[in-house]
Amino acid sequence: MGTGRTVIVFGADGYLGWATALHLSQVGFTVIAADNLIRRSWDRECGTDTLIPIRSMPERVRAWREVSGNEMLWRRVDIRNPKAVNALFMEFQPDAVVHFAEQRSAPFSMVDQDHSLLTQVGNLTGTINLLYAIRDIAPDCHLVKLGTMGEYGTPNIDIEEGFIEITHNGRTDRLPYPKQAGSFYHLSKVHDSHNIHFASRVWGIRATDLNQGVVYGCTTDEIAMDRRLATRFDYDTIWGTALNRFCAQAAVNQPITVYGKGGQTRGFLDIRDTVECIRISIEHPAEPHEFRVFNQFTEQFSVQQLATLIAEARKEHGLATSIDHVANPRIEQEEHYYNAKHQALIDLGLQPHLLRSTLLDSVIATVEHWKKRVDLDLLLRPSVDWKKGRNLNWKGASHPHLTQVRSTDSLREAPLIARVGS
Amino acid sequence: MGTGRTVIVFGADGYLGWATALHLSQVGFTVIAADNLIRRSWDRECGTDTLIPIRSMPERVRAWREVSGNEMLWRRVDIRNPKAVNALFMEFQPDAVVHFAEQRSAPFSMVDQDHSLLTQVGNLTGTINLLYAIRDIAPDCHLVKLGTMGEYGTPNIDIEEGFIEITHNGRTDRLPYPKQAGSFYHLSKVHDSHNIHFASRVWGIRATDLNQGVVYGCTTDEIAMDRRLATRFDYDTIWGTALNRFCAQAAVNQPITVYGKGGQTRGFLDIRDTVECIRISIEHPAEPHEFRVFNQFTEQFSVQQLATLIAEARKEHGLATSIDHVANPRIEQEEHYYNAKHQALIDLGLQPHLLRSTLLDSVIATVEHWKKRVDLDLLLRPSVDWKKGRNLNWKGASHPHLTQVRSTDSLREAPLIARVGS
Repeated sequence: MGTGRTVIVFGADGYLGWATALHLSQVGFTVIAADNLIRRSWDRECGTDTLIPIRSMPERVRAWREVSGNEMLWRRVDIRNPKAVNALFMEFQPDAVVHFAEQRSAPFSMVDQDHSLLTQVGNLTGTINLLYAIRDIAPDCHLVKLGTMGEYGTPNIDIEEGFIEITHNGRTDRLPYPKQAGSFYHLSKVHDSHNIHFASRVWGIRATDLNQGVVYGCTTDEIAMDRRLATRFDYDTIWGTALNRFCAQAAVNQPITVYGKGGQTRGFLDIRDTVECIRISIEHPAEPHEFRVFNQFTEQFSVQQLATLIAEARKEHGLATSIDHVANPRIEQEEHYYNAKHQALIDLGLQPHLLRSTLLDSVIATVEHWKKRVDLDLLLRPSVDWKKGRNLNWKGASHPHLTQVRSTDSLREAPLIARVGS
Repeated sequence: MGTGRTVIVFGADGYLGWATALHLSQVGFTVIAADNLIRRSWDRECGTDTLIPIRSMPERVRAWREVSGNEMLWRRVDIRNPKAVNALFMEFQPDAVVHFAEQRSAPFSMVDQDHSLLTQVGNLTGTINLLYAIRDIAPDCHLVKLGTMGEYGTPNIDIEEGFIEITHNGRTDRLPYPKQAGSFYHLSKVHDSHNIHFASRVWGIRATDLNQGVVYGCTTDEIAMDRRLATRFDYDTIWGTALNRFCAQAAVNQPITVYGKGGQTRGFLDIRDTVECIRISIEHPAEPHEFRVFNQFTEQFSVQQLATLIAEARKEHGLATSIDHVANPRIEQEEHYYNAKHQALIDLGLQPHLLRSTLLDSVIATVEHWKKRVDLDLLLRPSVDWKKGRNLNWKGASHPHLTQVRSTDSLREAPLIARVGS
């Protein structure tokens, strides 16, 4: 199963990229872990930090070799640099590439104009670079791209997996599902989807677009093997997603803060299912010229339901939890129809880990263990709103990545075209 | 009608931008013509040139003042530079902004990876810069953005104007029309549309997206007033659109070259209708929070029909014309259903100039006048194909804009973020 096949994981230093790299290595793939480490510098910019301490990439890879006996290769590469991407493809001729290497925070993309541009330009450039590398260097390589359920927005009809059959004025066609994304980040994924679909049609690229829901949890079978293998856990209002952030709030005896009415409904999944979905997608590759879209989540909850589930789990341990409704910093529907299909990955063999109090217990216990690392300022008050960008709660640098990214090696290598094009 | 209102036209040095700036000035708007002149450097890169000679922007603006008595302001500005765009908005507080300032050639966007990135990054950045400038400096300003009918591709159902009502599993919603664009250029306009729609929802921006068909013709009432007011006329395989290119071929007694079967059907319009559609859109602005989409064309033809119309028009003057079918450099359907709505601009008062042999006569006569400027190499053989990019017919520089754009002032002003983001 998968043995002997080569996979490059771009974004391998991230929350899910690292967990995925470990899992693919464990099941027998030759894994090249690639990242530019920019997420760590964005933490410095925002004044945020992972709750669970994480090691450097060289340390992680060494620990994984000690623990598992598996050799994972680490390469510091900026996916926005075409030459660096091409060199990696030349060196490894991958059978599959997993693409997590995008700016993935909606609030970060809404901080100001620089951050909107950074998000869209960086994300689009990285994906286009992969498409060209596949076309020119490894045409049989299967692109497994992380999209988001947020691409669809909240339409008043059922959400299908990427495409919808439309009958109109007596004629019928199967067309891309209409997109109504809710931030410059989510929009960047919409743009990627259109670009990949095109490259698949025109160049014959095999592509799987995984429209992922909100991921929760902090451990997988591989991560549990050694504390040096921990993956990051974000609990702040910029990088932390709903369930993880709520658990952190509860652990430090703060009220869970629900944005607005809390009727916002989304798809959710366990981090253990994320790594399984990636494995399944690689082991059942798309055909040449095929652009397939899987909705990657296992259950739907409203934000209010999620908060209530956490409160109930804590109650079983005799812990009290309060839930506050705060002004919504985002512009979004707070009460809406939501019914999204998620059958394709089940059909390929996914066995979901549904949200149970046992899982919640383990997240709460982990957060409890590290709770002295929690910065309450980062946890409680949204520092970015959708109308005006960063507000008075913003703790980060005011002109941040301008200096931080300037110092990376990758930027010095970036070709002039990247500067011209902006 | 329109008097006293201020409009910035971005891309005012282009084929349609210049014609639009003249027309808006003529009907009483205060027009600021803005451009970075990059199209002229792309001509140098590609070895292409406008068939009809054009003057520099300062000469054009001076000639227009002499001829009409109207003062048009000229500003050399790179729309990709946020500071420069903001400064222009601060200076003029525009009531409307017309956005033509994008890389607009599908073949140019397919030359190679650099050109795909340049097209998408540049086009997205310019549009995002306008959205932020409107939000922060002139929130009541109406954005009139040039999209393309090519965003829709060739679905097997009727094409509506931007949105479609979909009934699915017993529920109904009005959603953005699904997009299936056929080049990295066309995709960049799809991305822009999604970004503008979002900014309209979240920030309340007034926006009109004009999904324009293929424009033909070389003159408007204003251009006809003085030869110094000529607008560019592209006839080559990179920048020239079907009808204009066909007329040039016929004028130099070459066969009209139809790509593939010629069943490719598109919407077309006269350049005189383009400038009217822009005027009408500005004089009937979108409401705050409204993102409206107009399909801006007047008639549908297949490429084969177009070639036949030209042959017939020439026959009336006793001129013979042959039609050749050549291998299609693009990946596209060559026989397909096509029925696109184009009612909204008619409802607002557009009186179309339909394609008649009199118009064809005037284009053919103009081309005839300048035919010694025709470079046959540029006219006959496509130099870019959709699978492999530029081919042996490519006459341009091999690493072109790298040097050319480096020398522009605008690049020196570009903020570091632009370099980081790529």
